[in-house]
Parts: sequence; structure tokens; C-alpha cells
Amino acid sequence: MNFKAIEPLEKKIRILDQRQLPLKIIYHDYDDYRDIIDSIKTLEVRGAPAIGIAGAFALAIASMAEVKTDVERLKKILIDIADEIKSARPTAVNLSWAVNRALNRAQKFDGDDIKELSQHIWDEAKSILKEDEEMCAAIGRHGAQLIQDNDTILTHCNAGALATGGIGTALAVMYMAKAQGKKFKVYSDETRPLLQGARLTCWELMQEGIDVTLICDNMAGFLMQQGKISCVILGADRIAKNGDFANKIGTYGVAVLAKAHGIPFYVAAPTSTFDENTSSGKDIPIEERSPEEVTNWGGAPTAPNGVKVYSPAFDITPVELVTAFITDKGIIPGKRK
Amino acid sequence: MNFKAIEPLEKKIRILDQRQLPLKIIYHDYDDYRDIIDSIKTLEVRGAPAIGIAGAFALAIASMAEVKTDVERLKKILIDIADEIKSARPTAVNLSWAVNRALNRAQKFDGDDIKELSQHIWDEAKSILKEDEEMCAAIGRHGAQLIQDNDTILTHCNAGALATGGIGTALAVMYMAKAQGKKFKVYSDETRPLLQGARLTCWELMQEGIDVTLICDNMAGFLMQQGKISCVILGADRIAKNGDFANKIGTYGVAVLAKAHGIPFYVAAPTSTFDENTSSGKDIPIEERSPEEVTNWGGAPTAPNGVKVYSPAFDITPVELVTAFITDKGIIPGKRK
Repeated sequence: MNFKAIEPLEKKIRILDQRQLPLKIIYHDYDDYRDIIDSIKTLEVRGAPAIGIAGAFALAIASMAEVKTDVERLKKILIDIADEIKSARPTAVNLSWAVNRALNRAQKFDGDDIKELSQHIWDEAKSILKEDEEMCAAIGRHGAQLIQDNDTILTHCNAGALATGGIGTALAVMYMAKAQGKKFKVYSDETRPLLQGARLTCWELMQEGIDVTLICDNMAGFLMQQGKISCVILGADRIAKNGDFANKIGTYGVAVLAKAHGIPFYVAAPTSTFDENTSSGKDIPIEERSPEEVTNWGGAPTAPNGVKVYSPAFDITPVELVTAFITDKGIIPGKRK
Repeated sequence: MNFKAIEPLEKKIRILDQRQLPLKIIYHDYDDYRDIIDSIKTLEVRGAPAIGIAGAFALAIASMAEVKTDVERLKKILIDIADEIKSARPTAVNLSWAVNRALNRAQKFDGDDIKELSQHIWDEAKSILKEDEEMCAAIGRHGAQLIQDNDTILTHCNAGALATGGIGTALAVMYMAKAQGKKFKVYSDETRPLLQGARLTCWELMQEGIDVTLICDNMAGFLMQQGKISCVILGADRIAKNGDFANKIGTYGVAVLAKAHGIPFYVAAPTSTFDENTSSGKDIPIEERSPEEVTNWGGAPTAPNGVKVYSPAFDITPVELVTAFITDKGIIPGKRK
């Protein structure tokens, strides 16, 4: 990959502005945690693993700014800041998972030097990033065995390098399959309203020389009906204990269509996306986004002024529609009959 | 309705430019049949019944331009012109149906005055328009009985007044139900790539005071899963002899989802949309549109430069997914179990 969604620098992180892709490749350096929260909220950085990594670094950076305090006071302050970071986006569990992990590292610190405490949080964030890279590679290795020569894979939204600290989740499978010399094609749903499939997935795959064709979300069913899709592989923002999962809006529709056509439906996600504290899909909070994301594109209106809009950012797919989960620990069967 | 998609004037027709809706309400007057063909090709006028009406008037207008000929020669010329008009768009049967009807009227003419011949074609086009208005009203009357108080109706694309010579097909049902005092809500799929649902259906329904909420196409499944949709009503571009039908891309996916959730799926269409010469869905030609319709909006790119695109304008829904057809002759059951 010749790009990174997030890169730690000296006491700051560099974030690739995904809102501007594929037209412009712009990086921003942030040394204030509030800017990183904004970056997460506005989808400058997005993707469940990537926002977790950004959140952990945000906590480390926040701790560095607290220079006139002591370790015990800083530990208390960080609890509030962690809450602030975690509330930036509600659906993906990776954000709270990573921020809690960084926070726990801080709470366990038993020295008396606040700089040292900050360094511990920073190190934890770097560990999360490094482990994510390794998890992506492992997902890719496990998933690649599911790909056959001449397969045509459908994906939705972006579960690629742009969404993680490594080579992605769903797209990691494709990168690894390509590295193994397998020949396959990809159809990418454009993924309304913010077009992560068109702007990000197509861009990533084209950069890596993978044969990708863009379709509108509503064309996937017709492709399946024509026998043009071998399997679906996409990511997840949170997987409940029973296997129900949240992912980008439209995932559920793809899952229903895949079942209706007998097409395998695979969900690629790292261990950090599995949430033991959420028992089923109905317990996952669904973020609603602003109407303007649906009614405008690039400043051009796409709908009548004042129209009512419903815009959930995610939907819930029951485990009964999942053929298997592709994780860093291996392939875990779903419950699709 | 305070607008008309097509209106015959003196030796010309006035067409509402639907590419510019809802931002601008602009009418163009055409007295050259080639301009009307362009108008159909570029989707300035669209919707199966409406392009049929436009095509019939185009033939009448073409005949008026042939002043230096005789009746027999004109009849031969009109056969070629009719072919030219019919080839403007391949999927909707109404275009060839209406043009053939106008052409037959010409071929049966047994006078020797070319002006009189032209008048006959013009009269036939006006009859087609008038009958379409009546068919729309009849569809509305038959369909309204399917709507209950507090229903929430999902529709896709635009099968409204903008698509016909009257008050629409699918939307006619809503207009009639409202006139009967029924209270209901509508969700409108935005309908990528050209956003006929967002731009046209929302605009029409808002004009008529019907409660409409815009969603992206990929959100319909999630609404159904949440129990928020009472029924689906949409139009058709061609209905084959066995009941399979072509309609705007995405219709098939909605039909699969409706069946999976046990939600009634209704297809509203006039008699002219039923094609006795097409035995099943696989015999319906599917128009492919240009990549730019997917990769740009309002001049702003939505995808990487040079990305491959697949963009069928229509899909085929098998009759096994249809609960019933709402026609001007009454409700005809589909074959959904």
C-alpha cells in the first residue's frame, strides 16, 4: 500500500482525509484530541478498526496536553476524555474497545511521572495499531482460501486498508488472494449516501491492480439473478455475542439477496469487532446521519428543498444470513441454512 | 396537478424538462421529431407511458414536415421514421406500442391529402394521451382500495404524473387514496443513478401534500426489517405474457426483500405496458446507460477517474415475486405464494 489511513508521528497522528478521496490525497496532522474527535465524527477517518486506533491515539495525545497535574488527577481526567472520544460515533464497537484498552493501561500505571503515563498510553495505541496490522494480514490469509480462480466477489462500503491500520478486512482477503496468484473480479457497491464503495473501495483496488467494477447499490440483485456473483465479502462494525452484526446501511439487503440466490455471504472482521457485551443485534445502537448527506452531492442538490429524510448509517444483519465470519483467528461458521 | 409532463400545442408539443427537476421547472416546445427523439434518449421526458405519448406525437410532427410528397410516399417514409423513434429506448414497450398505433392509423388512411393524413396521426396521438389519462385514473381507483389508513407505502423510481399523460400509475393509487381521505405515509427510494425517486417522486408527492420521506435505495431492507413498510407499489416498463416485468433497476431487489418480509408487492401499470409479444422476462431487452451517470453528479465526480462501471437501467422481476398487478381494468393477481 502506498498510503496509510492513520500514521503515528512525534506526539501527533497523521490522518488521510477520506472525505476528499479519490479526488485529492490530503493528510492532516493532529496534536489536539478534539480535532481527532472531529475527524472521526466527520468521517475524515472511518472504518471500525481505524476509528478505534484513532481514538486510542487521541487519548494518548489528550494526556500529553495535561502538563500541570499529577498522575492521580490525570487518571480521573482521562476517564472523562475517554467518554468524550467514545461518544464520537456509537455503532462500531472498536472505538470504545480501543479507547477503553488505552484507558485501562493508564489506570494501571503505578508510577508518579505524568510524562511516563502518557508514554504508556501512546505505547498502548501503537500496540493496538500493530496488532490491527497483524489481524488484517491474518484475516487475509484465512479468507483467501475461500477465493477460487475466476470468482466474482461483491463487496459493500469500504472494509479495506482505508478502514484499518493494515491491509483491511474484506479487502485483505482480496489482496492476499491476488498475492497468491488467484484471478478474480470484484463488483463494488457504490454505497450511498457517502459513496465509500465508489470513492474508497474502487480507489484502493485500482491502486493495487485488482479488477473492480462499480455498480449502484440497487444493481446487486440483478447481478446475482444473472449468476454473476460467486460470493459476498464485506466488513462489520460490531458483531454481537449471538453473531448478529452491524455494518454499513445496505448490508442487510445484500445478505437477504445473497441467501435468496444461494450465494455465500462472508463477514470479515478482527477480534476487536466482536462485542461480548452486546447479546444480539437489537442491542446495537444505530447512528442516524444528517439529511444533507442524502440530499446533496458536491454542493449539488439531489432532492427537493425541505424533503424529509431517514438516513440510518448502519443496519443489522441476523446471523442466520451469514455463511461464515472470516477472522484473524480463522473461519467461524455463521448460521445460514 | 399544476404541471404536465407532455402537452400538445399547435403542431408542436411542450415537454417538461425532467432532468432539471426539482431545481428548475423548464418547458421546451418541439416542432421537429428529431428533437423529441433526443428528448426521449436524454430522459428529458421519461416513464413508460409518457415516452409512448411523446413518440406518437413525434410521428405526427414528422409527417407534418413532409410537405412535398404524396400520401403513398409519406406512408413509406413514416415506417422508417417510426423505427427511428421506437429505437430511442428499448426496454419500455409503451414506446413501440404507441408509435405503432399512430403508424397503423396512418397506414389505414385512404384519402389523398397529406395534411389530412397528418391530422389523423395527430388525432391518434391525442387519443393515446386521453386514454392514458383515463387509464391512470382507473389504476388509481382500483389501487386505492388496497390502501388502509396508517399504511406506509414504499415506492421506487417515479411512476407518477411525470411518467404518464395523467396522474401516474403507482402514484395514482396514492393520489386517489388521498382524495378518499385515507391517511398514509410514503417512503421513496432515491433511485440511483439518476435519482428519479429523490428528484421526481418526492417533488410530485410534496406538491400534492402527501407525506413522503426520502431514503437511499439500500435502506429499504432495514425499513422492512423494522416493520415500517405496509406494502410496495411501483410501476413497470414492460410486462411479459407470463407476468415477468421490467422496471427501473433496483425493483428486483425490492421485490426479493418484500417477499422475505411478507410485505405485499404491487405493480401498477396500464394496459399498454402488457406486451403480448414478449413471452417472459428473459426476452425483454435491458438498456445499459453510460458510466458517467454513475460516476458524476452535478459535475462533481463520485468515483475514481477511469473506473469500470456496469449500469443497467432496468431489471427483470419474475411474476413469482408479484402479489398483484394494479391495472386500469382492475386488480390482476400475481403468482407470489
